[in-house]
Amino acid sequence: MALHGRELRSTIDESGVLTLSLEDVTLSDPAEDEIIVQVEAAPINPSDLGMMLSAGDIASLTSGGTSDRPFLTLHIPESRMAAVRGRIGQSVPIGNEGAGTVIAAGSAVRELEGKRVGMIGGAMYADYRKISARDVIPLPDGASAADGAAMFVNPLTALGFVETARNEGHTAIVHTAAASNLGQMLQKICLADGIPLVNIVRSEEQAQILRGIGAHHVLNSGDSDFRQQLAEALEQTGATIAFDAIGGGTLGSTILQAMESVAVGQMSEYSRYGSERFKQLYIYGALDPAPTVLNRLAFGFQWDAGGWLLFPFLRKIGPEVAQRLRSRVVDELTTTFASHYTRTISLSETLQPDILRAYERKATGEKYLIDPTQG
Amino acid sequence: MALHGRELRSTIDESGVLTLSLEDVTLSDPAEDEIIVQVEAAPINPSDLGMMLSAGDIASLTSGGTSDRPFLTLHIPESRMAAVRGRIGQSVPIGNEGAGTVIAAGSAVRELEGKRVGMIGGAMYADYRKISARDVIPLPDGASAADGAAMFVNPLTALGFVETARNEGHTAIVHTAAASNLGQMLQKICLADGIPLVNIVRSEEQAQILRGIGAHHVLNSGDSDFRQQLAEALEQTGATIAFDAIGGGTLGSTILQAMESVAVGQMSEYSRYGSERFKQLYIYGALDPAPTVLNRLAFGFQWDAGGWLLFPFLRKIGPEVAQRLRSRVVDELTTTFASHYTRTISLSETLQPDILRAYERKATGEKYLIDPTQG
Repeated sequence: MALHGRELRSTIDESGVLTLSLEDVTLSDPAEDEIIVQVEAAPINPSDLGMMLSAGDIASLTSGGTSDRPFLTLHIPESRMAAVRGRIGQSVPIGNEGAGTVIAAGSAVRELEGKRVGMIGGAMYADYRKISARDVIPLPDGASAADGAAMFVNPLTALGFVETARNEGHTAIVHTAAASNLGQMLQKICLADGIPLVNIVRSEEQAQILRGIGAHHVLNSGDSDFRQQLAEALEQTGATIAFDAIGGGTLGSTILQAMESVAVGQMSEYSRYGSERFKQLYIYGALDPAPTVLNRLAFGFQWDAGGWLLFPFLRKIGPEVAQRLRSRVVDELTTTFASHYTRTISLSETLQPDILRAYERKATGEKYLIDPTQG
Repeated sequence: MALHGRELRSTIDESGVLTLSLEDVTLSDPAEDEIIVQVEAAPINPSDLGMMLSAGDIASLTSGGTSDRPFLTLHIPESRMAAVRGRIGQSVPIGNEGAGTVIAAGSAVRELEGKRVGMIGGAMYADYRKISARDVIPLPDGASAADGAAMFVNPLTALGFVETARNEGHTAIVHTAAASNLGQMLQKICLADGIPLVNIVRSEEQAQILRGIGAHHVLNSGDSDFRQQLAEALEQTGATIAFDAIGGGTLGSTILQAMESVAVGQMSEYSRYGSERFKQLYIYGALDPAPTVLNRLAFGFQWDAGGWLLFPFLRKIGPEVAQRLRSRVVDELTTTFASHYTRTISLSETLQPDILRAYERKATGEKYLIDPTQG
């Protein structure tokens, strides 16, 4: 019994045209350890946008096709072509994670039939997803597909930050773009686990979101005395590790510099090499794609900046610790790890130019959810 | 029997004036585990210049005093004052390392009397240095003070790079400003130990120095096809760690990007997160004090940039490994670890404006030695 459905694809050709389209795909029967899930919810995360739009220039957006089978094109600037060379000609499916109802199951995993599950593994922007049973988690009773749609990336990333901080000997954390769904989860975890967290946001509205869930330290980087507020918060918390979603520009540098200033202020003797306090910056996002600028002479030699990515982290901690983190996500799915969506759109709406421009903005606190059952 | 001598000092006052002067100091008798060394040679390393000149603006240099007791002043720009606040009002002695002859020794270390030793511990730009016997190493027979003047910082740093690369799982190394005394030592160590080294220099003259000691990979960052040469050298050597003396600008970023390009070229499948190859940049100098600019989107998420400094490294590896490295320095003092000096100057010449401007330029391959016995 072959199943037919649509799947969102992103393709770049030799001339630098990126095409987004809904392709017809046929799913064969699941193998014995596989299931077929009817996708009911899939979030649009920044990492999905990265795969979907690649280096495409939003200003060059054009649309075509029919309302049932729309397509969009974007132009990739010549200067960025080298970075995408590896995927030219490939029809790339999109959507890291999602949730839905199991409509078919292989012989070894029959008990999943009819269950609602959260999934990770890509290609979730589709009507149906065939997937190995070990890449899904059955949702707790009463949980909606929206509840389970983002139970992997954000929850495990937030837990991963805390795990990383602890493993590397830090006792308090700084987080930027902190009012995001991920940031709210991180704040709830830190409150539960007794870890001081310094949240940095870019508007008073975002600050309110965090104060509303009990955040003690919320700084607005637009405030004229931001640096002083930051120094005070770092002094109070002792934070020496920061997770930065922005990446571009000087905010990460400003944080390392403030950490160093606090450390130097607590030294009894001057050293031209700065303090001996080790300061870590992890860049895990690219809300600003501009280069990272580090005024390193202001933070001594005991510093480190690096990329942080979920999957290498999960490999590093190993299956047992990963399982402990996953269990916590299921236990606290509708509390600590609740996601909030600004808007739910259908699969075909995903390819409407005005809607794409809206979700592409990646405004903190705004989040779109795709529900393919809406058409 | 008190001993009188001169000592070079650097002092910053509240108004931002940095004064360099020769102060008269009196040395009391050594304790039982101490010695007094007549300093005969002390190198001017970039790290010494950092302590000596701090954030002073060379263009503001003025001179005064007498030929016997000269002094110089420099102005510290207002914007840099925050960084030097910790040393305002302190009379800071200069000179990390040096060598000379033991003219007095405490009862427990009498056997050092008359010996020529290499020393580390600061305040070496002086006629005499009282120092703990454990901070000196007797020179091998026939070695001059110049031979032993720089037996700590550069040799241990070069050995430290190789040790760090090995400990962190890298099999080949990239080095910038590679024709320096330190860079030549690193090349000799890498040849002896069979570790491929990619040297990056800024002139053909510097390239010749390295080829003259057997370097296989020497790239001139001024060449129009530098990036291509770099990619080829990285592909041939498999280098995934770089030690950068320059720090400012984009060279470190270019190296990480080239490492990533090589890794991506060897991948069978495209990933928007880039390769899984871990790439490390250590910044150990500041030949360019400008901010470090990292085009991180071009090197995936498996990267890291950090400060590298000798003393924290030595603490980290512990006394046994440090002793192994020191023994190698003594064994190969006049071969692997030979330093070359462009010019030897007296202590009072150190404070002549035109001479200061010359050694302050930090041109690669140029190195000054101070011999206080010359006056």
